[in-house]
Amino acid sequence: MSTPRRTRADGERTREAIVREAVCLATIEGLDGLSIGNLADALDMSKSGVYAHFGSKRDLQLATLDEAGRIFSAEVVEPALSAEPGLAQLLALCDAFFDHLLRRTLPGGCFWCGVVMEMGTRPGPVREEIAAFQSGFTALIQQMVETAVERGQLPDDEEPETLAFELNGIMFAANAKFVLHEDPAPLDLARHVVRRRLGVTTSASRPATARRARSRAQTTNHA
Amino acid sequence: MSTPRRTRADGERTREAIVREAVCLATIEGLDGLSIGNLADALDMSKSGVYAHFGSKRDLQLATLDEAGRIFSAEVVEPALSAEPGLAQLLALCDAFFDHLLRRTLPGGCFWCGVVMEMGTRPGPVREEIAAFQSGFTALIQQMVETAVERGQLPDDEEPETLAFELNGIMFAANAKFVLHEDPAPLDLARHVVRRRLGVTTSASRPATARRARSRAQTTNHA
Repeated sequence: MSTPRRTRADGERTREAIVREAVCLATIEGLDGLSIGNLADALDMSKSGVYAHFGSKRDLQLATLDEAGRIFSAEVVEPALSAEPGLAQLLALCDAFFDHLLRRTLPGGCFWCGVVMEMGTRPGPVREEIAAFQSGFTALIQQMVETAVERGQLPDDEEPETLAFELNGIMFAANAKFVLHEDPAPLDLARHVVRRRLGVTTSASRPATARRARSRAQTTNHA
Repeated sequence: MSTPRRTRADGERTREAIVREAVCLATIEGLDGLSIGNLADALDMSKSGVYAHFGSKRDLQLATLDEAGRIFSAEVVEPALSAEPGLAQLLALCDAFFDHLLRRTLPGGCFWCGVVMEMGTRPGPVREEIAAFQSGFTALIQQMVETAVERGQLPDDEEPETLAFELNGIMFAANAKFVLHEDPAPLDLARHVVRRRLGVTTSASRPATARRARSRAQTTNHA
């Protein structure tokens, strides 16, 4: 009686392991660099074993986007939503994004920052999914800004769409600098940039981590 | 007498045409997606004709970075440097970046935004060149902010490194949204974001283009 259930559960676990590996690999090789062959190698499986779960490269890419969305939701969005709505959620969202990078859950940084650039010029269902994710994430930031303004935690004349654009940009820049320089200093600086932009720092002085990053930047031109 | 000179000039022109095409192709296929074969196809040349100019894929990639640097310098940095040092240069630099995207000089948006994400995780001379470009560009923005602060065009407590990070982020976000949605509205919004951040807008009202972008975003969730 238990054999068919165990088999189905095994199949699901295998499929989960494949898409999880696909998300990781895509942050190094790109979404278009994924193949049944390199996934089979990475997982020490047969090609036919991987192929059984995905009918085509497009199916594999779409399943990879789904899994990347789940990871982003669990690591970035959900921790933020457990904070108080408004400014606290906004800060928590940015911090959770930087934490996600720092933990190196994925070896090549933010999956979505990478695929936006890689697949942005290639029309089709994969790009549509990526555009929907990007729009949804920007809308989430904007909604948090709106709540913070309504609650009087940000100035009345703050423009939610403008600030959402800026915060999204800080995340893009933080990811690029972190990945490129293999150094957590840009993440410390990014946390400081966010706090200063949101008026959360109570004094004009920079945190020690950001001062360190700054002196590195001055001596090594690393920024 | 003139034949050898013409031959050498022809060879230089051919090499220039190849690297120019390589920069364009890389914004669609990625720097790692470049090959002697797809360049030969794109230029309607023989593979051996292309191969004669580049001994290896790495040489081709490094030559492509050089050419991309020249294009960026001519389209973004030089126009900005012709403005008054300080705030005017800072604004001109951001606008020149958005103009560069809008002109579609390269089919896939900013070459450098793309290769940072693609090659950031692959150690070697190509990544080193990209990191040097990124550091140099951030340092240039920072220096313009410092001049603007010295000239009293930005508040005394403005932190040049922090603001340079933000402006760099706005450029990353503008490029990503422009490429992904094939729509110039994010560039109008980005110009407004920069002006607001630099305190250049004299009233709190948004320019018509940004208002348009905003109402689009509100109805289509496109931002």
